[in-house]
Amino acid sequence: MRKVAVIGIGQTKIDEHWEKSLRELAGDAVLSAMQDAGISHIDGLYVGNMMSASVNKQQHLGAYIGDWIGERGKEAIRLESACSSGAAAFRTALFAVASGEIDYAVAVGVEKMTDSPSSEITSALATAADGDWETSMGVSFVALNALIMQRYLHDYGWKREDFANFSINAHKNALNNPYARFHMTISQEQFNSSAVICEPITLLDTSPIGDGAAAAVLAPAEILAKNVRGPLIRVAGSGAASDTIAIHSRKDPLWLKAAELSSKAAYKQAGIQPQNVDFFEYHDAFTIMAALSLEASGFAERGQAPRLAQDNEISLTGRIPVATLGGLKARGHPVGATGMYQITEVVRQLRGQAGNSQVDGARWGMAQNIGGRGSNIITHILTTEG
Amino acid sequence: MRKVAVIGIGQTKIDEHWEKSLRELAGDAVLSAMQDAGISHIDGLYVGNMMSASVNKQQHLGAYIGDWIGERGKEAIRLESACSSGAAAFRTALFAVASGEIDYAVAVGVEKMTDSPSSEITSALATAADGDWETSMGVSFVALNALIMQRYLHDYGWKREDFANFSINAHKNALNNPYARFHMTISQEQFNSSAVICEPITLLDTSPIGDGAAAAVLAPAEILAKNVRGPLIRVAGSGAASDTIAIHSRKDPLWLKAAELSSKAAYKQAGIQPQNVDFFEYHDAFTIMAALSLEASGFAERGQAPRLAQDNEISLTGRIPVATLGGLKARGHPVGATGMYQITEVVRQLRGQAGNSQVDGARWGMAQNIGGRGSNIITHILTTEG
Repeated sequence: MRKVAVIGIGQTKIDEHWEKSLRELAGDAVLSAMQDAGISHIDGLYVGNMMSASVNKQQHLGAYIGDWIGERGKEAIRLESACSSGAAAFRTALFAVASGEIDYAVAVGVEKMTDSPSSEITSALATAADGDWETSMGVSFVALNALIMQRYLHDYGWKREDFANFSINAHKNALNNPYARFHMTISQEQFNSSAVICEPITLLDTSPIGDGAAAAVLAPAEILAKNVRGPLIRVAGSGAASDTIAIHSRKDPLWLKAAELSSKAAYKQAGIQPQNVDFFEYHDAFTIMAALSLEASGFAERGQAPRLAQDNEISLTGRIPVATLGGLKARGHPVGATGMYQITEVVRQLRGQAGNSQVDGARWGMAQNIGGRGSNIITHILTTEG
Repeated sequence: MRKVAVIGIGQTKIDEHWEKSLRELAGDAVLSAMQDAGISHIDGLYVGNMMSASVNKQQHLGAYIGDWIGERGKEAIRLESACSSGAAAFRTALFAVASGEIDYAVAVGVEKMTDSPSSEITSALATAADGDWETSMGVSFVALNALIMQRYLHDYGWKREDFANFSINAHKNALNNPYARFHMTISQEQFNSSAVICEPITLLDTSPIGDGAAAAVLAPAEILAKNVRGPLIRVAGSGAASDTIAIHSRKDPLWLKAAELSSKAAYKQAGIQPQNVDFFEYHDAFTIMAALSLEASGFAERGQAPRLAQDNEISLTGRIPVATLGGLKARGHPVGATGMYQITEVVRQLRGQAGNSQVDGARWGMAQNIGGRGSNIITHILTTEG
């Protein structure tokens, strides 16, 4: 298997882009990544998207976007694994290059959600859960996360206010990210009095939807090493794992088994341990997912992630900086695009391009993208080493 | 890149399976393929499906099906490239094994279409076309194919009756396929007087939708060669290419550029020429697509494919046998599953398990899966050689 590097990134701001179509958003990100990489053509296009069939009435996004960017004739397919569709596209592009089949691959995540009524978005998000046993009972995606958070508070004795710093930290870091949806800080008091959406989850526990696209160019590290200005960003580890789609089938609903499996696979490939990771772009769709993600990936003991947040060990200078450019909470969560935003952020950090959000001396960055309620988790480790 | 073999296949009959859910259909095909391969666990699941979001209100099919078959914890993702989603899943599974990332991959194509009103299916199929420039004008997918066929008849001087043998041959071959939707022959007279759907396309030019799933197990050829009973079926070539999504953007609407590119890539990898191909499972969604596919893949001169059909060179004993187990026309076309039905049929031929449809001495089989109106085409060549 060939070593693979990320040689270019591009993204749009996450926003309400009513003036842009789905393909314009994706095209903007892809062309910007190609320009960043200094290439004018690609060999393959891998699109991560969750809900274009439901809300944009357009599928076949490979050809749809490949055509738009002028790359007709190339392989162009779409990957879908709910909210982890972005990382699935990156991983598929990685295989295409690693296997030797192609040299220049572009992975792009794109989602356009704000043109549609919110009831339609809620229904579309619910297609990530088990239609036969969960959605058909009327449970929404937020409700599934609320059930888990309720159980977490009960079992480990935390209060919901103890989760505040996951959101406060994310909003603070997003101030330094021009592509983030939100540029405002929030306080503990605001968090405490935030409006309940589904008890115990409040508005400030949740990430906002949005329109956006993020892309990366992958190429064989060996071929390119000599031409790269600045540090070569290598994909050191990639792991993917699934879990039961319905929560009721899990023996331990408070443990993200797929996060454990996929992060262990990525650590093994990269030859590192959790303590070597300099920062972690996790999937904080809800604060409870932030906590579970930290625990299952080896950064906190079971039931102790809120302590890590309270001790501010998740800040840019803490033991494990997270959501360094805003995370899902403040950068935003255009679902199928999120995994690729995480990748672009890891690259920005490793290049030293994160501005006031820069993690000093960052050499190993990890991104973890979660689909469904933990039923599909994909973890990548990128590095400037070796 | 490691050599990869297909070591097991499974499929359901294509039918109106109102008694089975989407995951039951997929599970039946996957478990049957695993049994055929003699394995009890897999490393990764690659699901090809086009329209589950639109018509089944269920996405995230990787986890949904992986969970159902008891393979929790494994990588499980979905591929979508309209009607070529099945072959996209096979090609992604191929990369996963070829790259050395995993050993045992299952690719499954599944579609469940007959529970839904036909207006919903027509709308869902139209998401494969260009929503901004085609669908928004009210043109359906049949209408797009009818425009092309009209132009073909005009430019090359054929009559629509000259296309009859594509359908007659498919129906005849389907008699020998227990998994085919239709088991009845049709005559030239029936074809000639068939009801017009969209001029010049009639009912007997078109393939039927249906519910179904087909799967294959892929594994490294080197590791397995010594354990395989019967011939080792190796994936010798794989090519994928896209084209403009809207037909009006094509300089030559009568030439499937993506079929040319993807078949040439597959021939090159396999080290063969069109004349070495013993049979061709093509994508005869409409008779016009059968003709264009034969021409762009090197089996007929431009504008001359109807002659090949009239001379019966497409029969089981002809120069290039096609649709040997019924093709889309008579085996049926559950859109996202079709590419995997083609693969299982190629394997059945190469194993000598095609019964009265057996192509004598078949050693090189080709499958070509078309997404959209030729905007995404994926070609695979399988062989018993080397």
